Amino acid sequence: MTPIRDLSKLCIHTITTKPWNIETAIEKYCAAGVNGITVWRQWLENRDPYKIGQEIIKSGLTPVSLCRGGFFPASSLTDRQKAIDDNRRAIDEAAALGTLMIVLVCGADPRQSLEESRRHIFEGIAAVLPDCEDRKIRLAVEPLHPMYADSRSAINTLKQANDLCDDLDHPLVGVAADVYHLWWDPDLQNEIRRCGESGYLWAFHICDWRTPTVDLLNDRGLMGEGCIDIPQIREWVEQAGFEGFHEVEIFSNRWWQADQDEFLKAIIQAYRTEC
Amino acid sequence: MTPIRDLSKLCIHTITTKPWNIETAIEKYCAAGVNGITVWRQWLENRDPYKIGQEIIKSGLTPVSLCRGGFFPASSLTDRQKAIDDNRRAIDEAAALGTLMIVLVCGADPRQSLEESRRHIFEGIAAVLPDCEDRKIRLAVEPLHPMYADSRSAINTLKQANDLCDDLDHPLVGVAADVYHLWWDPDLQNEIRRCGESGYLWAFHICDWRTPTVDLLNDRGLMGEGCIDIPQIREWVEQAGFEGFHEVEIFSNRWWQADQDEFLKAIIQAYRTEC
Repeated sequence: MTPIRDLSKLCIHTITTKPWNIETAIEKYCAAGVNGITVWRQWLENRDPYKIGQEIIKSGLTPVSLCRGGFFPASSLTDRQKAIDDNRRAIDEAAALGTLMIVLVCGADPRQSLEESRRHIFEGIAAVLPDCEDRKIRLAVEPLHPMYADSRSAINTLKQANDLCDDLDHPLVGVAADVYHLWWDPDLQNEIRRCGESGYLWAFHICDWRTPTVDLLNDRGLMGEGCIDIPQIREWVEQAGFEGFHEVEIFSNRWWQADQDEFLKAIIQAYRTEC
Repeated sequence: MTPIRDLSKLCIHTITTKPWNIETAIEKYCAAGVNGITVWRQWLENRDPYKIGQEIIKSGLTPVSLCRGGFFPASSLTDRQKAIDDNRRAIDEAAALGTLMIVLVCGADPRQSLEESRRHIFEGIAAVLPDCEDRKIRLAVEPLHPMYADSRSAINTLKQANDLCDDLDHPLVGVAADVYHLWWDPDLQNEIRRCGESGYLWAFHICDWRTPTVDLLNDRGLMGEGCIDIPQIREWVEQAGFEGFHEVEIFSNRWWQADQDEFLKAIIQAYRTEC
């Protein structure tokens, strides 16, 4: 695999450097030579997303995506409608921010079957597509690791995400592929190829899987700290035609407790050598 | 689904009631009307497996299987040979105990690729099959949840286990299906059918998936405490021709701290109402 020569495709999710507010993140990412930022919605709370978008664009960063929409399944109709309304707000926020894409963590409800949750996901996305058309916002379905099938997403493989895109059959629905969720899958290479051929491959998220993993949610590794063969997956993704950003998305209690300037240095070093 | 009418197919793994030694487990399971026991190898340490097998058979319990063999992948040849030798000891133990089957947790090594680990699994099983033939011991490959793909098993779906059995093509190699590992899989119904049609479906393990799950290894739920539709999976398994034991295998720090007599009562209650 060709080594990464520069930082032109490096994007960082604001959640990765959780202790930093949006202004600090913009300033620090820019100073470090990072080129893209994916903004988590918590960073927009009680803020004007348009102004933040302008700050991002002035800084020279690309606002790669807004994280996250989704969480459509619920056992009550009221909660399903609330989720749809919240996704509509996310679409407005994304448009104001100036990004073209929202990442969807589709959701699941442990009180109902996976099939029922998948139906709610399909119907929830379909319900907000007119809003996406108005705002020119794309939705990237992120398949989540099967350990999140109970409560975070009933879409757990790239095959399922590709199938969902086929079923929705809409130019504003695609896929976000995250190595953390997908690395174990024996069908990964085939489904990445299919994802690219279908024109669905819109985002590529990177981090690593640590051994042992001590927390189901917040113990992701920096690239190189774990067992995921990131260069191999990057090769498949590029062979499938992907030319977008490499987005560093790390939830880590361990790294969040560290000095964030040192962490940012470590991210850039790891990006150059481990991806 | 037809409700469970009696305990004739109820088996418990000794690890489920971890605080009890083998004699206590035998006595308590029998008194409660349980009919099968799967013995974990730790319960045989420094003991004569033949004598323990005789006690089990005298008690009226069926020794359903020995848990566990496997862990074949390793980055050094020495360690791979050690694993093969250990599996040979497990085959001897199983024969002495009087059970017909060993459950395999196949293993994985985070320092090498999944493909390499899968090759070691194939070759490791092939290496011990002559011992299985001598002792008339069957090996049941247990696909493990993808959250264990780094270090416990590179076989993470029922499809992979079925494929592995196809590739090994030996009458002493089959599958152990555990709802905890497999419940999330959109291909589950199809692969259970295939597993049955191929004659591979030899064991059925039950427990539940809790929300939230707070530990990757030891936070399994009692049947009914989580989101797995056990009656649905049992229906698929029975439609596939399975007539064996329903084996309760729960690793739970929470339940291990409870009074084990109360836990056993709760298992039997849950078995009658939630499976």
